[in-house]
Amino acid sequence: MGSITCDAVEADVELELAARLGRGDELDQLRANHVDVAVDFTVPAAVADHALYCIDNGIHVVVGTSGLTDEDLEEIARRAAETDVGVVVVPNFAVGAVLMMRFASEAARFFQRAEIVERHHERKLDAPSGTALRTAAAMNEQRREPWVAAADDDDAVAAARGTSVGGIRLHSLRVPGSVAHQEVVLGGRGETLTIRHDSLDRSSFMPGVILAIKKVVALRGLTVGLEHLLGI
Amino acid sequence: MGSITCDAVEADVELELAARLGRGDELDQLRANHVDVAVDFTVPAAVADHALYCIDNGIHVVVGTSGLTDEDLEEIARRAAETDVGVVVVPNFAVGAVLMMRFASEAARFFQRAEIVERHHERKLDAPSGTALRTAAAMNEQRREPWVAAADDDDAVAAARGTSVGGIRLHSLRVPGSVAHQEVVLGGRGETLTIRHDSLDRSSFMPGVILAIKKVVALRGLTVGLEHLLGI
Amino acid sequence: MGSITCDAVEADVELELAARLGRGDELDQLRANHVDVAVDFTVPAAVADHALYCIDNGIHVVVGTSGLTDEDLEEIARRAAETDVGVVVVPNFAVGAVLMMRFASEAARFFQRAEIVERHHERKLDAPSGTALRTAAAMNEQRREPWVAAADDDDAVAAARGTSVGGIRLHSLRVPGSVAHQEVVLGGRGETLTIRHDSLDRSSFMPGVILAIKKVVALRGLTVGLEHLLGI
Amino acid sequence: MGSITCDAVEADVELELAARLGRGDELDQLRANHVDVAVDFTVPAAVADHALYCIDNGIHVVVGTSGLTDEDLEEIARRAAETDVGVVVVPNFAVGAVLMMRFASEAARFFQRAEIVERHHERKLDAPSGTALRTAAAMNEQRREPWVAAADDDDAVAAARGTSVGGIRLHSLRVPGSVAHQEVVLGGRGETLTIRHDSLDRSSFMPGVILAIKKVVALRGLTVGLEHLLGI
Repeated sequence: MGSITCDAVEADVELELAARLGRGDELDQLRANHVDVAVDFTVPAAVADHALYCIDNGIHVVVGTSGLTDEDLEEIARRAAETDVGVVVVPNFAVGAVLMMRFASEAARFFQRAEIVERHHERKLDAPSGTALRTAAAMNEQRREPWVAAADDDDAVAAARGTSVGGIRLHSLRVPGSVAHQEVVLGGRGETLTIRHDSLDRSSFMPGVILAIKKVVALRGLTVGLEHLLGI
Repeated sequence: MGSITCDAVEADVELELAARLGRGDELDQLRANHVDVAVDFTVPAAVADHALYCIDNGIHVVVGTSGLTDEDLEEIARRAAETDVGVVVVPNFAVGAVLMMRFASEAARFFQRAEIVERHHERKLDAPSGTALRTAAAMNEQRREPWVAAADDDDAVAAARGTSVGGIRLHSLRVPGSVAHQEVVLGGRGETLTIRHDSLDRSSFMPGVILAIKKVVALRGLTVGLEHLLGI
Repeated sequence: MGSITCDAVEADVELELAARLGRGDELDQLRANHVDVAVDFTVPAAVADHALYCIDNGIHVVVGTSGLTDEDLEEIARRAAETDVGVVVVPNFAVGAVLMMRFASEAARFFQRAEIVERHHERKLDAPSGTALRTAAAMNEQRREPWVAAADDDDAVAAARGTSVGGIRLHSLRVPGSVAHQEVVLGGRGETLTIRHDSLDRSSFMPGVILAIKKVVALRGLTVGLEHLLGI
Repeated sequence: MGSITCDAVEADVELELAARLGRGDELDQLRANHVDVAVDFTVPAAVADHALYCIDNGIHVVVGTSGLTDEDLEEIARRAAETDVGVVVVPNFAVGAVLMMRFASEAARFFQRAEIVERHHERKLDAPSGTALRTAAAMNEQRREPWVAAADDDDAVAAARGTSVGGIRLHSLRVPGSVAHQEVVLGGRGETLTIRHDSLDRSSFMPGVILAIKKVVALRGLTVGLEHLLGI
């Protein structure tokens, strides 16, 4: 991700690549190169230290690493709040995935039931996917009443009926020839609304990364999630 | 539509069916029966007179007829503005279709290109469908820059590439075994977002009709489009 | 089904409706009306007796009831074999569903993995659907080697990964606004092949019923499954 | 294609890579290295000469180049027929695409209408795609009666209704984030059957190339199309 991010920054007419740090490089190179915005794709264990260094040195930060603890996020938020620095933490940079989650949440109030089908290549280790779980959670947050039960929801249900997350059933397919695909199906009387995202490769993350870089300089404190930068 | 609307009103615990008027019935039955909200599915030529009668008699109005002229709408808006009456005109009562249009519009700023595929039964007389045209127009309204051209967009283009509405290409399929289906495909670097609506029958309009009846009593003046009542 | 079958027979220029028997009517009306082909949609318990009566009286039979026991089928096959009568038993009259099963079976040898997603209305009582189970069985019959396992197939697997039928995972969605839909996804290196059937209503069964009526007169003995009549 | 083919041959336990020829290399290296099967992905202009050399030297041939003239094919067929050499010419090596065409052809007799939607990246220069045109032609070959017309088929039709190939309408989408996708939709009374192929990259061609290499050694004369090697 670091490498294609550098390529994307160099390709953008409004941005300039000031420094490129790899494993083991000194953070002080950021200050030495007068970096305005740092983009961090390192491991969760290192992210907090990097972010705090940037905050102390007036450098805005975009974090693309997922898996930060709540303690890390609180510490970063507290320290950033004392400065003029903006910090953006983004679990998913694919604009399409973020919009899918947002639209599915907005639609949740208007249908009787919803189910999610995600499909990935056969080597994926976890099921359901993190995006499917986050989508279901976001939908349930917007939902004001219980989902309508299906005829077989109450009983001991066959595995064929998937996993329930607060009444939304999740189904995970693992099929060769797939990359990352998700479909949210919402159904009401006589109609269904389907919101689908298909991701082919990591290049789909770059517009989100570039957007975050351009927006973070005008932000103060901690922001979590690309959806807050889309300004819909 | 009139008949299934009456059924839907009777089935709703918060509503009561006060009167049921057919072709040739006197409008004064509305006042005689102390009707709070009138629902009108008659022909465009009659709608304006009905609405003005209701406005004059303090009866809120939900109009499900499409094809009203701009003059009619202006007249209704002007007269309603002088009273405490709300008038709602709804070209498409399917909540899913309205949300599809809304989401496609919101997404329009974040992708490079978009195309629309609609599929209806083989007896449909017009192509592209009104919903496809309205969707494309709504998307173009939100779009801030030109859509990226495809390699063959500039030349005299084969019919296979569909009809262009401001850079969005529309494709119409007419296939037996279909009812009313539409898919908006938005594409960016390495990803696509697809928003799809499938409608099976007119019962899908009833939740929208009921919603409009409940909301119109709190409105003043003219409102056009179900999207303004969804309160997202 | 009986009623719409009579309509379909009357609408076909090559066929004539000779008799219409309901619950409690005498089977001898079939002979009295010189019926050539009897179509039976009654309950499994009654089907065998009806078929044997027809066989004894030289009347060809089309059975649309599912749930016949193996003993019933053997008895019918044995008795029909002694005569010039053809008997066709059809669990699914939808030509599209039969072709979906056939194509999925033929494709089973050429891909690494396959999963099935079926979607029905929320009132359906069983999961997975009979069609999904029959499709998986038919595919496994044609498959010559084990399906490639997904990374999580060996472990105790989350319900999100569905039910396995011989290595093919089945997923069942129950969503309002649906009728009967099934999708078979086959995946190999860099590609997927998807075969999908959407059924809107029982009228989709009529072409299959009419086909069976026209073909059964040239058959001898028992035939099970519409696929044998399609002559592909 | 040459390079990934060599990788695929080396990765197959039943095959051995005997020689690797690039632009300008001498064809006699094939004989010198005792090559059993030659795979040719060069330009149409060179293919016929290469094939004739192989035929004369008892080397079986797999040609993956499209665009050979009918004269070339006839010449190759004539010369190969005089020997024990097999020649296989394959316009599309993706097994999934070949099966899609085959299934769509087989289904063509059982539905009232069919339309094809293909979607590729926005840089593709031609529309409709060659695969869409070949699919429509193959379907029309199997079709025994005219397709049922849609309500608007007779009139001067909007571009939205696509291009007609013998009554099958073709629609071409050009959307970023796509690779190569095609969907054949067949519709009849109350049902649709959809056959869809999604191709992610050229690796999807390799199983077809390997299959052709293994099968050609048992063939005599010219064979055109992977479908004849699938042995369904």
